[in-house]
Amino acid sequence: MVPNDRVLKQVVCDESTGVLSAAQANSLVHVSCSTVHPDTSRELAALHEANGLRFVGAPIFARADGVARRLASFCVGGKDGAVQSALPVLEANCGAGGVFRFGEDAGAGNVVKLAGNFMIASAIESCAEALSLAEKSGLEREAVMSMLHSTIFDCLIYRGYGDRVAQRCHHPGEPLVGPGFQLDLGLKDVTLALDVAAKVQAPMPVASLLRDRFLGATARGRGHMDWSAIGLSVSEDAGVDVSESLALPPKKRKLAAGGAETREVA
Amino acid sequence: MVPNDRVLKQVVCDESTGVLSAAQANSLVHVSCSTVHPDTSRELAALHEANGLRFVGAPIFARADGVARRLASFCVGGKDGAVQSALPVLEANCGAGGVFRFGEDAGAGNVVKLAGNFMIASAIESCAEALSLAEKSGLEREAVMSMLHSTIFDCLIYRGYGDRVAQRCHHPGEPLVGPGFQLDLGLKDVTLALDVAAKVQAPMPVASLLRDRFLGATARGRGHMDWSAIGLSVSEDAGVDVSESLALPPKKRKLAAGGAETREVA
Repeated sequence: MVPNDRVLKQVVCDESTGVLSAAQANSLVHVSCSTVHPDTSRELAALHEANGLRFVGAPIFARADGVARRLASFCVGGKDGAVQSALPVLEANCGAGGVFRFGEDAGAGNVVKLAGNFMIASAIESCAEALSLAEKSGLEREAVMSMLHSTIFDCLIYRGYGDRVAQRCHHPGEPLVGPGFQLDLGLKDVTLALDVAAKVQAPMPVASLLRDRFLGATARGRGHMDWSAIGLSVSEDAGVDVSESLALPPKKRKLAAGGAETREVA
Repeated sequence: MVPNDRVLKQVVCDESTGVLSAAQANSLVHVSCSTVHPDTSRELAALHEANGLRFVGAPIFARADGVARRLASFCVGGKDGAVQSALPVLEANCGAGGVFRFGEDAGAGNVVKLAGNFMIASAIESCAEALSLAEKSGLEREAVMSMLHSTIFDCLIYRGYGDRVAQRCHHPGEPLVGPGFQLDLGLKDVTLALDVAAKVQAPMPVASLLRDRFLGATARGRGHMDWSAIGLSVSEDAGVDVSESLALPPKKRKLAAGGAETREVA
């Protein structure tokens, strides 16, 4: 996995070190798990084919510790033969149930990944708004979130990000956050989703709103924090002082008894 | 449960038939499970107290079939003694794990219920936008949703509403929808949330966007449909023809093999 489209293209196309230049073996399969623009995967698939190689776009939902526990999910697009060749590698990271195929379009998996990351960001925002309503009505943020993610929103995304937003715990390295998913990358992914949305003419008003959220957070110097830190802006907009959440070093922060979410995504 | 604040006030205050006029028994406890403005609960709690009665605000997350299976969740606000008296009635519908207390403020449970319903509506909208991006990129809506709600969004709300949005299945009575939750009531709840938000000064930009979504759907005559029907507007905005989903009678619609979601919320 590489962080963005530019790096991926370089990894493939660099004249001296690129995949295309190095690989002489016919029918080699390049499985690309990065979160990039679907058109990048489509271009690269064509380039591979022109060079006698094969390309599978297989972006992954999982954090490093999730991969280690074989809990990843792959969104796969690519030609049948190439995907068949790639399956053993993919299934080594997730078991047979973690590979989801979306047809022969090499960019299809990237669309699903961008759609999913948009949905995660949207869930973070809606948790933050709901908790702001609750907190300013005199309720305890943690108690409200705990009720919601143990009942109707009892899934990974709401349990993990819900508690972080409730406790305003967004520093990578804190037990509740773990390695985190960098806010700068969240901005990149929402921007990619909106770029595809413009191209295929699919208005996404919440995604547009989220892009402004991410831009505002990076403008405040939070690009290195976990992307759940967009929740801080929601609190600030409601006149809540979040300086403690920003300033204190991770080890001094209040943390839930349960510790870190062990399976993490995006 | 009654549908709105006006009816609840009438049930309590009507001079000839109201709870306050009829109940002579001292210390009677009125457990109000309706989704209303928290201030309505606070006013009614004071009125009950002035008349020697007690009031508990205990809005419920569950549909009729969920209650029948004792799967409800109650968000409870009210004075300790009154809540203790109400517990046997509440737990009869949900077991001990389904009662969530949020302090002595009689309106606290209403805040949580409005926050939760806002989060459901937000999830519906984000599913609809994500699937619009996917569909217009050439992917199958059902396959994308199935992958997402079986992995990172594996919870009640995304499983139930996700498939409805994917299949554009929003008519009450259809197996995938069941009795449904009326779109008009969704508009009421988002409006209540925004009213509280304005009062406590908690900006909720996604809630504002959702109100416009609900207004647009009611303007198109969809107030009687399930509130997931706001997803139709997302498709229409992307130039997708949804006339089939609007016109066909429920029994002729394509349905998932799994049939109805059995536990339903809001």
